[in-house]
Amino acid sequence: MALQHTVVFTLAHAAGSPEEAAFLDDGRRILSAIPGVTDFTIREQVSPKSDLRWQFSMWFEDLAAHEAYTAHPDHVDFVASRWATEVAKFQEYDFVDQP
Amino acid sequence: MALQHTVVFTLAHAAGSPEEAAFLDDGRRILSAIPGVTDFTIREQVSPKSDLRWQFSMWFEDLAAHEAYTAHPDHVDFVASRWATEVAKFQEYDFVDQP
Repeated sequence: MALQHTVVFTLAHAAGSPEEAAFLDDGRRILSAIPGVTDFTIREQVSPKSDLRWQFSMWFEDLAAHEAYTAHPDHVDFVASRWATEVAKFQEYDFVDQP
Repeated sequence: MALQHTVVFTLAHAAGSPEEAAFLDDGRRILSAIPGVTDFTIREQVSPKSDLRWQFSMWFEDLAAHEAYTAHPDHVDFVASRWATEVAKFQEYDFVDQP
């Protein structure tokens, strides 16, 4: 069953800063290249009911593909070298079609 | 600019209960019929990193269409008569394409 993996987050960087742009660009380039990832998108979160500001979204064919992505060295390295220091706050959600 | 309005939530009802099914069915029927709503979907949230369990998602052509939905009597009535008593916990997010 296809699965949408999402994370909604706020960066430690100022809005509109070069550091923000670099994080988003690098995130897209590095994460979208990992095998199994399809339809990688970056969108802005604009509801005032949440203070999280960005969303990474990607689709996987199944849970096994999602797990392979999570364990992939490029993902592990991005989380350790970039996410851990540049993201101030985040929340993950994974969605599947209603059975 | 097209906007995706989402709410991730947990019901007060037991998983698999008739009350859960009725809430989801009525939510789909009532909310998807409100003018301006397109691509209404209900999906399950399956990440163990969140305790929210369902997602309603819908698209609007622009912010004005979203605001008209929020103010529509059928939406206001659904929130007051069903959402307020049957939803235990929720979080809204609205997404737009990265500029």
